[in-house]
Amino acid sequence: MSVRAGIVVTGTEVLTGRVHDRNGPWLSEQLQRLGVDPVAILVVGDRPPDILRALRFLAAEGCALVLTTGGLGPTADDLTVEVVGRFQGRELVLDEALEGRIAEILRPMIARWPDLDPEAVLTSNRKQAVIPAGAEILEPVGTAPGLVAAPLADGDGPTIVVLPGPPRELQPMWHAALAASPALRAALSGVIEYRRDMLRLFGIPESEIAATLRAAEQSGIAIDRLEITTCLRRGEVEVVTRYEPEQAAVYAALAGFVRERHGRTLFSDDGTTVDEQVFALLHGAGETLAVAESCTGGLLSARLTERPGSSEVVRGGLVVYSDDAKVALARVDPALIARVGAVSQEVAVALADGARTALDADVGVGVTGIAGPGGATKAKPLGLVWLSVSHRDGRRLTRSVTLPGGRADVRDRSTTVALHLVRRLLLGGDDDVIAPG
Amino acid sequence: MSVRAGIVVTGTEVLTGRVHDRNGPWLSEQLQRLGVDPVAILVVGDRPPDILRALRFLAAEGCALVLTTGGLGPTADDLTVEVVGRFQGRELVLDEALEGRIAEILRPMIARWPDLDPEAVLTSNRKQAVIPAGAEILEPVGTAPGLVAAPLADGDGPTIVVLPGPPRELQPMWHAALAASPALRAALSGVIEYRRDMLRLFGIPESEIAATLRAAEQSGIAIDRLEITTCLRRGEVEVVTRYEPEQAAVYAALAGFVRERHGRTLFSDDGTTVDEQVFALLHGAGETLAVAESCTGGLLSARLTERPGSSEVVRGGLVVYSDDAKVALARVDPALIARVGAVSQEVAVALADGARTALDADVGVGVTGIAGPGGATKAKPLGLVWLSVSHRDGRRLTRSVTLPGGRADVRDRSTTVALHLVRRLLLGGDDDVIAPG
Repeated sequence: MSVRAGIVVTGTEVLTGRVHDRNGPWLSEQLQRLGVDPVAILVVGDRPPDILRALRFLAAEGCALVLTTGGLGPTADDLTVEVVGRFQGRELVLDEALEGRIAEILRPMIARWPDLDPEAVLTSNRKQAVIPAGAEILEPVGTAPGLVAAPLADGDGPTIVVLPGPPRELQPMWHAALAASPALRAALSGVIEYRRDMLRLFGIPESEIAATLRAAEQSGIAIDRLEITTCLRRGEVEVVTRYEPEQAAVYAALAGFVRERHGRTLFSDDGTTVDEQVFALLHGAGETLAVAESCTGGLLSARLTERPGSSEVVRGGLVVYSDDAKVALARVDPALIARVGAVSQEVAVALADGARTALDADVGVGVTGIAGPGGATKAKPLGLVWLSVSHRDGRRLTRSVTLPGGRADVRDRSTTVALHLVRRLLLGGDDDVIAPG
Repeated sequence: MSVRAGIVVTGTEVLTGRVHDRNGPWLSEQLQRLGVDPVAILVVGDRPPDILRALRFLAAEGCALVLTTGGLGPTADDLTVEVVGRFQGRELVLDEALEGRIAEILRPMIARWPDLDPEAVLTSNRKQAVIPAGAEILEPVGTAPGLVAAPLADGDGPTIVVLPGPPRELQPMWHAALAASPALRAALSGVIEYRRDMLRLFGIPESEIAATLRAAEQSGIAIDRLEITTCLRRGEVEVVTRYEPEQAAVYAALAGFVRERHGRTLFSDDGTTVDEQVFALLHGAGETLAVAESCTGGLLSARLTERPGSSEVVRGGLVVYSDDAKVALARVDPALIARVGAVSQEVAVALADGARTALDADVGVGVTGIAGPGGATKAKPLGLVWLSVSHRDGRRLTRSVTLPGGRADVRDRSTTVALHLVRRLLLGGDDDVIAPG
């Protein structure tokens, strides 16, 4: 059985673009893991009529489950609970036991902020204990409780899960609801789990994959039984296939077909990212990494240290944004910079070696490029990035790429290219999959 | 006159959470600058019925303008143009002149990818030249053209602007459409521009602002004539107010009221970010900055170098993720680390001084903390971060905070606290606005 579901993200700050929504995508992933198909994510402002119409739209779309995020705070523009109550025809009531529990949560916070008027805080937060009668309460992770509200016995429409806006409150509360809410369990009963597999390629244009999919179909693979989406992400092409378990052989045939045609550029067929692969390769070899980065200004180090445990393989990094820093930290010869320029093959090599030496690492990475908007010349255009990776044992890979896009794109894509260059070096391969643009 | 508008973001990769949408928020901001109110952002998959229903929803919401993103690529799952044509009752036709222009764009790309089958590319991309009859073409920025399609003369419904998915294609194309599309200009004719102002505060809980807004109302300020939203972002509280120009005096009264009550924590009333203020302060004084960061692993350097021109004030940074790196790069005494631990006041101070010295900068910043999930102890809990800022002239500010959330939250919020500490030092103030958590 397939259950349709939808997500309503509320918040004028999200609708107006000031805050980037992380909850919609996260909840969408959670639903898919449960085998539930999200039909849409709606982002609306804090205005009750807009929230109400979003709920009606998803109900009309046949959703049996709707998740809402945001609008549970203490301020007057937080009205999600009220709207959900009205939508389901439930009366709003003050839950005094819940009010007491929220007051307990607030007590230490009030103590920490010496200038706070405790009365104002409690008034602000009493509102958070007013809930639609008969809804299940999800205990606060921060200060706001969530709700699971099934349609009334004589009504139809979706079961609504009301979650807070801050991701660090929403995520544990969602897991708690899954574990313990009878109403949510009832809404999810009987769903079938689809499988989802991903192929990741680097150094190939998306149109080439489109041609391969057509060729696969012509060769007799029944790809109409698979739901395939391809997209470009951070310079990689991702091919994601969702299918019912009985179509596993069709997917295996497709994956084999892609592997045969794109063996050099296909770097992942098991969901792993290049970040994970680089970590595993270093970890497996007991080796460490250090970087010296100019145009990326710290992004490569930040990406390498995103995962817990990265301290086992990442020694550290030099952010050598200025030429002086290249000299002072990475021991690049200033005469070399004067002769060939900071964005050059030679300086990339010197940065890789300098990082490796300064941090006594096994592998060094150097990145130097023109992220723009200034600094480009005819010979060194915007987006030109030189990258070098060197190993303590003498191996080295050095390449230039010219990346499309603006400053943020060039900086971000450079980190992807750097990771692939490290991966190639660690696999002992040549670097022919580093594409020219 | 108020024009209602909506945004449809298409793409299964976005709906399923694999790719984070940047276009919806960006377009929302663009619309607001034009005085147009976005009523909703809908994220839907690549399935034509879902896209069609999203268009119908926004039409029913009274939108005179709908922007779509994505689904213009060469693959078979890119169907936005077809759906828009069907929605407006326009026939789909191959525009041969456009096909020729796309072929021109593809020629150098085909040359760059030696293994590419040129025929496959051209077939894949012919599809991109099939457009609804009578729609205005927006010339490709990448390879995909966009469209502006007004309702047919005998129809009603919104004018639809069809834009590509990659932000670096979408953004210039939107500006080009604004500059040159008669149909878009007609849809926007006569809108009034709202004003939008923002107050930013640091070191104060959101509930305190809610209390202040209630107090402002009680004091007689007609805040019901303003549309006020507050939100927490990266550890700061933002109060955004939208209002019609004739309510400027009411807004001025509100801003004055907030300034009076929260003078110590209000750091921006003109839209500037703390990043911009730190840059301006350094630039104005002709001073430079260097950082040594442990738990943030490069994020602080990356944030400082996000803006073009940052090389004028940012000398560089040390990513001292391992203890060895703290010693080797920032010259922290290993005996000190052994005695007090890497996450400590003393090491934060040593990192700030070490960064300043190693990079010969005027201001040094040191950050060391426990981002988790491992490494916490009872005395040093998850989220504990020590920060220090030191100036060449001997001034210094050092503080610890205990930040809420997971690894990514702690890392990100630490960069905000660091910037505020730098700002306080540069303003010559004490550091009493650095909140405890």
